[in-house]
Amino acid sequence: MQPYGLTVDKFLDHAAKWFNGHEVVEADGGRVIERATYDALCARSNRMSGALASLGLMQGDRIGTLGWNSLHHFELYYAAMGAGFVCHTLNPRLTAAQLAAMVDEAEDKVLAVAEDLMPLLRAILPHCPSVDHVVVMDAAPSPASLAPQPPLLWRYETLLETRGRPFRWGGFDENEPAGLCYTSGTTGRPKGVVYTHRSNYLHTLRALQADAVALTARDVLLLAVPMFHANGWGMPFAAPAAGTRLVLPGRAIDGASLARLIRDEGVTVGVGVQTIWLGLADHLEQSGESLPSLERVLIGGSNCPDALLRRLEARLGAAVQTSWGMTELSPIGTIAPPAGGAGAGRPPLGLDLKLTDAAGTRLEPQRGVLGHLKVKGHSVADGYFRGDADLLDAEGYFDTGDLAVIDKEGNLTIGGRAKDLIKSGGEWINPAEIESIVGAHPAVRHVAVIGRPDVKWGERPVLIVETGPKQDPGLLLNLLRGKVADWWIPAEVAEVAAMPLAASGKIDKNRLRADFAEGRIAATAVR
Amino acid sequence: MQPYGLTVDKFLDHAAKWFNGHEVVEADGGRVIERATYDALCARSNRMSGALASLGLMQGDRIGTLGWNSLHHFELYYAAMGAGFVCHTLNPRLTAAQLAAMVDEAEDKVLAVAEDLMPLLRAILPHCPSVDHVVVMDAAPSPASLAPQPPLLWRYETLLETRGRPFRWGGFDENEPAGLCYTSGTTGRPKGVVYTHRSNYLHTLRALQADAVALTARDVLLLAVPMFHANGWGMPFAAPAAGTRLVLPGRAIDGASLARLIRDEGVTVGVGVQTIWLGLADHLEQSGESLPSLERVLIGGSNCPDALLRRLEARLGAAVQTSWGMTELSPIGTIAPPAGGAGAGRPPLGLDLKLTDAAGTRLEPQRGVLGHLKVKGHSVADGYFRGDADLLDAEGYFDTGDLAVIDKEGNLTIGGRAKDLIKSGGEWINPAEIESIVGAHPAVRHVAVIGRPDVKWGERPVLIVETGPKQDPGLLLNLLRGKVADWWIPAEVAEVAAMPLAASGKIDKNRLRADFAEGRIAATAVR
Repeated sequence: MQPYGLTVDKFLDHAAKWFNGHEVVEADGGRVIERATYDALCARSNRMSGALASLGLMQGDRIGTLGWNSLHHFELYYAAMGAGFVCHTLNPRLTAAQLAAMVDEAEDKVLAVAEDLMPLLRAILPHCPSVDHVVVMDAAPSPASLAPQPPLLWRYETLLETRGRPFRWGGFDENEPAGLCYTSGTTGRPKGVVYTHRSNYLHTLRALQADAVALTARDVLLLAVPMFHANGWGMPFAAPAAGTRLVLPGRAIDGASLARLIRDEGVTVGVGVQTIWLGLADHLEQSGESLPSLERVLIGGSNCPDALLRRLEARLGAAVQTSWGMTELSPIGTIAPPAGGAGAGRPPLGLDLKLTDAAGTRLEPQRGVLGHLKVKGHSVADGYFRGDADLLDAEGYFDTGDLAVIDKEGNLTIGGRAKDLIKSGGEWINPAEIESIVGAHPAVRHVAVIGRPDVKWGERPVLIVETGPKQDPGLLLNLLRGKVADWWIPAEVAEVAAMPLAASGKIDKNRLRADFAEGRIAATAVR
Repeated sequence: MQPYGLTVDKFLDHAAKWFNGHEVVEADGGRVIERATYDALCARSNRMSGALASLGLMQGDRIGTLGWNSLHHFELYYAAMGAGFVCHTLNPRLTAAQLAAMVDEAEDKVLAVAEDLMPLLRAILPHCPSVDHVVVMDAAPSPASLAPQPPLLWRYETLLETRGRPFRWGGFDENEPAGLCYTSGTTGRPKGVVYTHRSNYLHTLRALQADAVALTARDVLLLAVPMFHANGWGMPFAAPAAGTRLVLPGRAIDGASLARLIRDEGVTVGVGVQTIWLGLADHLEQSGESLPSLERVLIGGSNCPDALLRRLEARLGAAVQTSWGMTELSPIGTIAPPAGGAGAGRPPLGLDLKLTDAAGTRLEPQRGVLGHLKVKGHSVADGYFRGDADLLDAEGYFDTGDLAVIDKEGNLTIGGRAKDLIKSGGEWINPAEIESIVGAHPAVRHVAVIGRPDVKWGERPVLIVETGPKQDPGLLLNLLRGKVADWWIPAEVAEVAAMPLAASGKIDKNRLRADFAEGRIAATAVR
């Protein structure tokens, strides 16, 4: 058989050749501000590779990006990866200190930044001696200069115009790195995941299966998940690979903006976290609009209770496809078919799951019991950037840190994080189960259960809630009676005005634990 | 990223684990005679690997199969490939001499044979000293023994029962060979194509895309293409990889048998050559039956004129999906989306096409002109078994030998074989164009145009037809007037009682040329 490297530049080349007239559009506030066909994008990206190379970058060098879902950001993905550089996507919702630590660890040589993030960049730069060049994306004609220089400041279009030249993409080993993305870091120091060309290529083919994301050339995809979250869930690869038209919403992902974009562009498939689609559903309910082109939305990032799922489907007039994934998985783990499934679906070909006990022993049977979820596959990390080289168990599985149950048909449901488990009297309490019951109460906006040290029991659970109208703590606890073991029910409840959230939108339990330990959150004893 | 070898045993493992209750069934004469779930099949195949290893086979050794679409044949695919042996599928419709030459060249150590093909086997064996063991598939309790021994004769079930043991699948390099399949050999000596684990794995993912074969876990697939034709078009891999239920029709693929199977098993997708589906359509028309479960059939192997396609769709009550492929491509080249397309569709990701002139120079533009079709991809041969090591051009493309045109949207239509072109007066005549016009006449069963030497012009075309009611040769030629250049129109017509067909069902033009040259076919001068 022919030698044929699995490198990601082939996705954009494929779109340029076979779906040349299909467009990628960029919006701002719900209005399209720029359009480009795949063939034009491919030519520009390729010339941008030449421009980046002219800055002195070598194979494997990192290019950091701080940006929204824009055409420039999309072009940079391919300009960097196609040339053998590494695209290091950074989350602008992190703090300057967190970002500086990542840029420094990655030794990014170039930082590409959206113009409205220049203030953040200025706070980062002094701590990042590796950065030789800054490229301002989506830029007005003359961005304010950086002083003192270096680094050198480039406008994206000027760099492309003055330094751009055709570049021979690919040709290197498919196991070379293509991307770098740090995990959300809700617990401790963020950890970098290095994607290779091969892992991205194979992940794309996994995603494109008819029972998975199933994009086609007649689809129009709205990418409402940020491109700095785990490769934008792989969609910047999957869309051109399938010839799918792509809508990049820019920074605005509120309900009204998305509704307008979906209608104007005839979007058929949307991808994003649950909150985004709840916002869209609320907007549709208030405005009375409908979105006839929208066929389905893909959600991930959190469990979606069945009742919420049905409500979303009714309001959106579209199917809701559930999934589970994580940065270390490139990121798709399991996914329900577009036609509907149970829980977060099954793993498409190329990923295997295993449930173990806390000691790492495989559970038998694997179905119907909660266990520690371990994964193995062609697009799964075996370690972290500049971290331990090999985190895998003896059978080659990676520990997700999640608890999960798999039903008889093979469908996965996540049952919380293993490190959130509370050990009380030698037995485990699973906060996720308590949270899911209390969280179903309509007045409860956010709920978290954490453990506090206890002399007699080791640990005891504390219920922390953010509610709309104030609730009687005793009544909230009553919701649990008969549904969990009596000894699982917390004896203390704390109300907070605003639950602390991490950059990923998930509840920051580390901060909750610290705030509780240091007395910034006070709990009331109920029982 | 984790190391993860792309080996085909993972397909059956995946089905066994995630779609364990889904069945593969085997039929005979349209009635199901045996059922097995994927998990049972996987366990049996795996034990069969152990049995084969016990016969002394080593990594890379070839196992020839002479069989129909049966459970044993399916199990042997995985038993051989999973263990690192090579599954060499043989076409029972070839002559004993042709088969013996292939078995001898491949040095098959084991031959697995369907019981009704034992007479063919007996004719082959004396010329195949490499064969140490014969395994009789689908066997009645005691097949007649071979005398004199060796080779040793085994009943499939006895071998599995007495020698079967668990075997550790995979673990070898993904570039190791998995399969061997000889091309139909309409022209000269048949050529062996060696498939690797990697090429089969990647071909499977290409096929499973939503715009390609798009199998899902709710589909029931009828495999009406023989498993000895280019991996059964890759379906024995794609079905378990997607959790698709599989119906193996055995030897009988007549309309009545298929209709019964489709109805009884709730088949949603059928795969096979056009002739099969024409037979089914005829049966439905005669019997008045309908097949409500059938959603689409995938055809390949020949161009399907639009009118025929619509007629088929109307009679089957199902969509017809067109495609083009060849043994050297594993075999899918292009495919129209399930929702419909033009010509034979576009190449899904992982294959690139190029059109050149006869000298190999890339045509510009690549659209709207007939050219020589060259291909490059992860599942394309770069040479033949024990043949030239590298048949690729300077850009790494393989010459398909086909002529093709690609429309503005990227859809391919095959326009004949390059070697069938006739050079007349220094210019090319394309027999395929003449054949397609004359072939549309309802009385014409088969049509072929061949070149004969001509002193003045170099070559001149001869029209050869097999018709139902006898036709006036002049009237047939009149069909061409105004549709092709006048100098393309043959001046000689020959009628044959039965057009010579190769084992693939295609017209054997080599034999036609020989028969014509040696006077066994006589032509009438018309003009």
